Amino acid sequence: MLLYQDPRAPNPRRVRMFLAEKGVAYDTIEVLIANAAHQTPEFRTKNPLALLPVIEFPDGRVLRESMAICRYIEELHPEPNLFGAEPWERAQIEMWSRHAELELLYPIAQVFRNTHKFWEGRIKQAPEFGQLMREVLAERFDWLERELAARRFFAGDRFTVADITAVCALDFGKVCNIRVHAETHPHLAAWHQRVSERPSAKA
Amino acid sequence: MLLYQDPRAPNPRRVRMFLAEKGVAYDTIEVLIANAAHQTPEFRTKNPLALLPVIEFPDGRVLRESMAICRYIEELHPEPNLFGAEPWERAQIEMWSRHAELELLYPIAQVFRNTHKFWEGRIKQAPEFGQLMREVLAERFDWLERELAARRFFAGDRFTVADITAVCALDFGKVCNIRVHAETHPHLAAWHQRVSERPSAKA
Repeated sequence: MLLYQDPRAPNPRRVRMFLAEKGVAYDTIEVLIANAAHQTPEFRTKNPLALLPVIEFPDGRVLRESMAICRYIEELHPEPNLFGAEPWERAQIEMWSRHAELELLYPIAQVFRNTHKFWEGRIKQAPEFGQLMREVLAERFDWLERELAARRFFAGDRFTVADITAVCALDFGKVCNIRVHAETHPHLAAWHQRVSERPSAKA
Repeated sequence: MLLYQDPRAPNPRRVRMFLAEKGVAYDTIEVLIANAAHQTPEFRTKNPLALLPVIEFPDGRVLRESMAICRYIEELHPEPNLFGAEPWERAQIEMWSRHAELELLYPIAQVFRNTHKFWEGRIKQAPEFGQLMREVLAERFDWLERELAARRFFAGDRFTVADITAVCALDFGKVCNIRVHAETHPHLAAWHQRVSERPSAKA
């Protein structure tokens, strides 16, 4: 199993962390966005959208999209369970995975794309939208602070794929100076610390 | 089962269309975004994010997020299968569901939010970002035209939840004059026609 990835990008890290939690071995090929390696005709044969990560199986099958990859790995390697053990738990984890993605990862990625100098000259930027996303994130941090006062992890009292997405989002936010502060958001910061201490967080 | 929804919004339609395909009966409560009914303290007890749809079960349990709702309904009502019958098919459907969401629905929603006069005075808009999303969509239409030359539906040769997301996205695009033209994108237009003819498309 071969993971096409960039060590600095948040979506490949979601898959690496998921694989680390599962204890599954894999090989990697670096496709560095900084070098526009994801834009080459060769990589586009793996993903015409020029997005990372992509996973390739020994028989040549290719799968794109972080969550499609993680779900498929969960089917191949069911333990430890990260997507839920019964229907209602699966529903809660899916809800919180989507919250982590749509309310954290997506806005943070848009701040990065639209305001960071890394992208200057590489893509068209809309800095005003990046600023709007910063404002959304401030509201989301307040909301998550209230949510995490009542439980240890995003989707309940155990670590799941929703926590993987959320921690990869928040850690990536640092590049744009988006950080959780323990003084103002103690429960969110404690959750972040709890998740960051897992060995998989180094993946 | 009670669906909180707005008849004109694309995400509630995804759930209505999914329920129609399943043949599942449900009640609805209209929460009209035009009246800011999604922003009331009462509705925020159902969804603190003030987003639609939300589904409520007779025992009081509440579930947010379209795809979490659809997945849970698939567990309760497995037939007709819309998320995949075996692991690799499930992986393909998840990949295409996410493509439909991230490459169509999300950019279309951002064009609407950031450029449409409906939102003037309701939210802060970043028109420049809306314009960037229009350019992305033009590229995505070309990509989907190539993809759909080779198969009948988004994720393969049968109708799945990925098609529901994609058709709800494209139909919603009309409000911003985003349309598929058969002259330039015949395969995408034929797919759109094929999906629109299903009885569930009226849901």
